[in-house]
Amino acid sequence: MPYEFKLVRRVEFIETDMAGIVHYSNFFRYMEAAETAFIRSLGFSIWTQQAEPPVGWPRVHVECDYKSPLRFEDEVEIHLLVAEKKAKAISYAFRLRKLNAHPPVEVARGVVTAVCVTHVHGKLTATPLPKFIADQIEVAPKELLDAGKPRA
Amino acid sequence: MPYEFKLVRRVEFIETDMAGIVHYSNFFRYMEAAETAFIRSLGFSIWTQQAEPPVGWPRVHVECDYKSPLRFEDEVEIHLLVAEKKAKAISYAFRLRKLNAHPPVEVARGVVTAVCVTHVHGKLTATPLPKFIADQIEVAPKELLDAGKPRA
Amino acid sequence: MPYEFKLVRRVEFIETDMAGIVHYSNFFRYMEAAETAFIRSLGFSIWTQQAEPPVGWPRVHVECDYKSPLRFEDEVEIHLLVAEKKAKAISYAFRLRKLNAHPPVEVARGVVTAVCVTHVHGKLTATPLPKFIADQIEVAPKELLDAGKPRA
Amino acid sequence: MPYEFKLVRRVEFIETDMAGIVHYSNFFRYMEAAETAFIRSLGFSIWTQQAEPPVGWPRVHVECDYKSPLRFEDEVEIHLLVAEKKAKAISYAFRLRKLNAHPPVEVARGVVTAVCVTHVHGKLTATPLPKFIADQIEVAPKELLDAGKPRA
Repeated sequence: MPYEFKLVRRVEFIETDMAGIVHYSNFFRYMEAAETAFIRSLGFSIWTQQAEPPVGWPRVHVECDYKSPLRFEDEVEIHLLVAEKKAKAISYAFRLRKLNAHPPVEVARGVVTAVCVTHVHGKLTATPLPKFIADQIEVAPKELLDAGKPRA
Repeated sequence: MPYEFKLVRRVEFIETDMAGIVHYSNFFRYMEAAETAFIRSLGFSIWTQQAEPPVGWPRVHVECDYKSPLRFEDEVEIHLLVAEKKAKAISYAFRLRKLNAHPPVEVARGVVTAVCVTHVHGKLTATPLPKFIADQIEVAPKELLDAGKPRA
Repeated sequence: MPYEFKLVRRVEFIETDMAGIVHYSNFFRYMEAAETAFIRSLGFSIWTQQAEPPVGWPRVHVECDYKSPLRFEDEVEIHLLVAEKKAKAISYAFRLRKLNAHPPVEVARGVVTAVCVTHVHGKLTATPLPKFIADQIEVAPKELLDAGKPRA
Repeated sequence: MPYEFKLVRRVEFIETDMAGIVHYSNFFRYMEAAETAFIRSLGFSIWTQQAEPPVGWPRVHVECDYKSPLRFEDEVEIHLLVAEKKAKAISYAFRLRKLNAHPPVEVARGVVTAVCVTHVHGKLTATPLPKFIADQIEVAPKELLDAGKPRA
């Protein structure tokens, strides 16, 4: 069962700031892109109509440690690992690497915890993960989460 | 009846890019802020539940001419003028000025045309302006729109 | 010589707004991505150190006509056409199409005019296009610009 | 000596996403706005030319816990507390409250750690806090940081 996913993207001009580097908030943009692509790779959507009622995934906790800056046109690999799977929430760990360094260098690590909710009349209520998602994913092996380094 | 509105805001760090100036897309952020504040000043909201069914204002045309860059912590005045009022659409003209120049200097002019729509089951349908908005605003005087300069 | 370029990307969650559609300002994000990828395809960078002094490309005019909304996970093709090539400026025309409609549907058309500048001590000065860029691109055929439709 | 700062702003349309709430990444936008306003209130700028060489403040760690969503036009108070002052870094704690709830409700708590760096030829090097900033701020009282609640 899948417990990881990798996405590669290139830094865009609009993502930089006057310090000449990627604005730190965009690292969450990158992590979200990897998360939605991961769910899509399972045949679903993060904003799914496949559950009844439809569910969403608001974040309850996010964090990021920045080790090295990213710059315009850098190639970034976002490596998602399923860190925790609870009844109504999923935590992902992320490792971001700059691929156009020699050798590639880890630039950041992040964590995102999303809770599964239904939206009824604008009210968010925590709800169990849809079975078709919960059944398909598993927590990544401990050594992978601890090391935080992709296996060769 | 109101035909203009002014909003002042300060350029934020996140709005800059690696060229050291405000990324051009943020000028639309500024214009949108002035537009929503204008509607709010009339006692309504751009995303109103005050109409039945609720209406929204997707853009059908926007443009901007950039004359001079904005930088971090500059003070910007966004001057909104009602340029056209149609049955189902409003056009706004915008003049943006940098107030912390001596004298203040016009940095950009923009145009935004928004159509009034209802959202029913995800489908957008053009609909007449809500009466409580249409009755309250009028088109700015021609000389103001032509000159594009705030009267002293 | 190249006069057009196509880029395909998928709408991201962060690009949507509470109306359930892509916020209109993101269409400029898409056009910028196509423009930088076009320049990159020529072997250069929009933020080039390959000229001496380095040059940048601030926008002097942008516009966009919106015909149909884009939604989360839609596939968008951004078709760039060189619309005008002046001594110190380039204009691009853009056609955006939603590829996951059957048949694909044009959702927007845009125009972006960028001026080539040097940045010296924070001052922007218009300067002729770098020869290695100017020599490589040409204006798209008139019928293509007029029709605004990709040739089959 | 100052150890806290409060900023109030209103949620903008562009900050919402298709879930109808503020996209979580914008909470960092709000915290950054409070941080730059705090530094400005001391007579300096987060992107200061007042130090020689100029210094910047890249983030090395950020986190946020989300308790309740924010929606369009909500009024948010961002309460900044100086949580730690090291030789070359500052940590801020943030409490975000929705003021237009009765009574106001805490919607999020964040932490941002920024390192003071010089930018020389594009290289970032950690450097001691400028004296004119370090001398002016102090760490907030422990009970304030622990309680995380503004004193009445």
